Amino acid sequence: MEPARNPSVEVHDVNDVHEALERAAELLRIHDELQAMAIAAAEEPGGTPPDPQRTQRQTQNLDEIRALLDPLHPADVAYILEALPRDQRLVVWDLVKADRDGEILLEVSDAVRETLIAYMDDHELVAATGQLDTDEIADLAPDLPREVIEDVFKLLPPEEREQLREAMSYAEDTAGALMDFDMVQIREDVTLEVVLRYLRRLDELPDHTDQLFVVDRAEQLKGLVPVNRLLVTDLDVAVGDVMLKDYTQFNANDDAADVAAAFERYDLVSAPVVDDAGRLVGRMTVNAVVDYTRDKIDSEKLSAGGLREDEDIFASVWKSVQNRWAWLALNLITAFIASRVIGLFEGSIGKLVALAALMPIIAGIGGNSGNQTITMIVRALALGQITRQNASKLFVKELSVSALNGLIWGGLVGIFAFLIYHNWQLSLVMMLAMMLNLLLAASMGVLIPMAMDKLGRDPAVGSSVMITAITDSGGFFIFLGLATLFLV
Amino acid sequence: MEPARNPSVEVHDVNDVHEALERAAELLRIHDELQAMAIAAAEEPGGTPPDPQRTQRQTQNLDEIRALLDPLHPADVAYILEALPRDQRLVVWDLVKADRDGEILLEVSDAVRETLIAYMDDHELVAATGQLDTDEIADLAPDLPREVIEDVFKLLPPEEREQLREAMSYAEDTAGALMDFDMVQIREDVTLEVVLRYLRRLDELPDHTDQLFVVDRAEQLKGLVPVNRLLVTDLDVAVGDVMLKDYTQFNANDDAADVAAAFERYDLVSAPVVDDAGRLVGRMTVNAVVDYTRDKIDSEKLSAGGLREDEDIFASVWKSVQNRWAWLALNLITAFIASRVIGLFEGSIGKLVALAALMPIIAGIGGNSGNQTITMIVRALALGQITRQNASKLFVKELSVSALNGLIWGGLVGIFAFLIYHNWQLSLVMMLAMMLNLLLAASMGVLIPMAMDKLGRDPAVGSSVMITAITDSGGFFIFLGLATLFLV
Repeated sequence: MEPARNPSVEVHDVNDVHEALERAAELLRIHDELQAMAIAAAEEPGGTPPDPQRTQRQTQNLDEIRALLDPLHPADVAYILEALPRDQRLVVWDLVKADRDGEILLEVSDAVRETLIAYMDDHELVAATGQLDTDEIADLAPDLPREVIEDVFKLLPPEEREQLREAMSYAEDTAGALMDFDMVQIREDVTLEVVLRYLRRLDELPDHTDQLFVVDRAEQLKGLVPVNRLLVTDLDVAVGDVMLKDYTQFNANDDAADVAAAFERYDLVSAPVVDDAGRLVGRMTVNAVVDYTRDKIDSEKLSAGGLREDEDIFASVWKSVQNRWAWLALNLITAFIASRVIGLFEGSIGKLVALAALMPIIAGIGGNSGNQTITMIVRALALGQITRQNASKLFVKELSVSALNGLIWGGLVGIFAFLIYHNWQLSLVMMLAMMLNLLLAASMGVLIPMAMDKLGRDPAVGSSVMITAITDSGGFFIFLGLATLFLV
Repeated sequence: MEPARNPSVEVHDVNDVHEALERAAELLRIHDELQAMAIAAAEEPGGTPPDPQRTQRQTQNLDEIRALLDPLHPADVAYILEALPRDQRLVVWDLVKADRDGEILLEVSDAVRETLIAYMDDHELVAATGQLDTDEIADLAPDLPREVIEDVFKLLPPEEREQLREAMSYAEDTAGALMDFDMVQIREDVTLEVVLRYLRRLDELPDHTDQLFVVDRAEQLKGLVPVNRLLVTDLDVAVGDVMLKDYTQFNANDDAADVAAAFERYDLVSAPVVDDAGRLVGRMTVNAVVDYTRDKIDSEKLSAGGLREDEDIFASVWKSVQNRWAWLALNLITAFIASRVIGLFEGSIGKLVALAALMPIIAGIGGNSGNQTITMIVRALALGQITRQNASKLFVKELSVSALNGLIWGGLVGIFAFLIYHNWQLSLVMMLAMMLNLLLAASMGVLIPMAMDKLGRDPAVGSSVMITAITDSGGFFIFLGLATLFLV
């Protein structure tokens, strides 16, 4: 028998949000139609009065959209806003309750946030920050107009003003920039009973409170008490006797990537953040870490594709061109260089045209192989797996892999060339050029990311363009050079 | 004054693990030296007896390594194992306490796990699973020999045997495969006081217990009670009156990617997993989600670089060649095709050699631009932002961006060609070819991932190779074809 379900139970699942988006898109299509009819009617000669039935349908339609949005989580509203073309996005934004503006702005992507903020006046923006915690205001701050920030500061109580100033003072991608201030602090010398009484007065604990922070009068962090211990321990014990003294803490200036790695490694839910003097200044939670990781992956993917930033999929054509031009310009320069390298050997190509058809093979496979090496090395660097002792072993290994690949693939392209051009000297030159270009690719594939890492730059950014430029120009030079020496 | 620090406090920070790795590498270098000396002495003619001083130093050295490893978190030991060459890795593995084998095997990468499991005998492997929960054993199971799994099953108590069978029955990358069974279940009709008494008997709550699951006698999930509510609510209230009825739940067959998106979106720490009949079957925690996301990103990065799987950085040359060959072979085929396209126009190139030098520019920039489009579309697809209504708008937008880019970059390459070859007809052909190839890149950049998505394949995998193949061969064909028509 099907168990009776309580109608007041509201259970969500993973498909709810997609359904909400489809429904919103459908309602907005109707909205656009009604709007178009209204405009057409208004433009009619004779100035017919507005059709009361249509006006009613418009109001109904807007009410339906509002009723769809109201129960949604702010992150779901953000998702819908991102997936809508700009006009419809602003229709939806107008229908969102003003007291949810702040939390939704926090959730949307940077590009979409920009379009929404540009649409709001200063008064609305100040009001939107009203429902946010100081660490959240700090997250929004870089996108807000200066006057808005000044007004926000004036409206905050002194303690929160200080917190906001502190949160805004940390560099992007540090623990300080990601932490919040929602930590429950207790003293070492009280009993758990006292702690429990104190908690009951709080009415509700901050989200993600899985532990309480034990500090002394100088704000010095002494230990942690997991909330679950409060449930299973005798209440007359002192905090000092049950607190954990073996824990992971972060410095506010720690790199966010290291913090994220530690959360992953030690399965943390929250952790204390201290300043250089060991004073508790904030709390890091797993959800901040998850969001940071997601953003970082996204921007890595975008930059690997040569997109400078998160592009609103409905950005204007002109904005998209701007977002993408730097990458294309960079690649154009490397293409021009490769073209001039080929230009050096025009005489040889004129004598043996087959060279023109074969040269992209050498360059292309060199680029592919070099990128494989770079992928390996960048990953090992990111995981901190490369030490002074093993770097040279890695180098030798990659060169050996390339030499073996050179034999295999060089042999294959040699056979390919022979089948088509029936010229065994040409085949030998192909084979030799392939081998040399793969060795070039392997050595540069190890050296480029390691050098970038030494210079303090992120080896994930730009390594791929460099290796491709080198294996293109290098491959053309090696192949056409050898051909000039031995064939023509 | 510097506050006095309690010497029993053990505070960790983000650099500890790197220091441990450097120290381990140094100790292992000494180990290798002592080992080499021992071998050299043994091989000396006359058979000198072992030097007692050296033997003592060897023992000391191993003790030091053991002392370094023992206090480390299993994830940190895993990290050190991954960063060591194979011989040293096995030395360390032998020094790890046997009762930690299981949890460390869970933490190492697939490639390294394989090397460690291959080194262990069946008896050790069965023992290693002894300290693991059933959901963890299920994670290891695909890598264990069949006999080991059978023995493990025999040794488990009936209830856990059933859990293991269930955990192993779910497809990879589903909620069921990632969930654990550590949930605390309570009844609706008892008071919080009773719940608290029950929890006290448990001694310690399972990790990441931020909520208790309310079920009826038929295991049907009725609601959730956040642990923090137990702390701040009167104890004589019934569970049914404080439990949350508005929550997110997952089906055991839900796609793990959707689950991860929901955890990110709603900032969850744990969530119930139910079967099709609404019965509670497990619990999903944020740390399982974080690990899943990390693995998925890693494998995406690797496959984008054409590496079939996670490669142990100290894998043998032959293993590395195998890991990489499929990608190189695929690219070789596309390179052969491009080469034959050029071959069609050898006559034209023979008459106007400049074509050979200029053609890689057209192909290269087309590939770059196409990959930018694909990056955008794959991302929008992954976020579920593409609906029936907006797909055609996106297509038009990408074509417009390409047309504009074609004008800009086509003009530039035309000028470049004119400066070098002083042939304005050639410049015009360059410009036109660039424009056409960018339009080809944009349309394929939208169509390929959308078609793959429709066919149920992951558009992130393989799109890039396809677009590059098309813009290479297509670019050569367009440029050389136009040149043949208008120039030679």
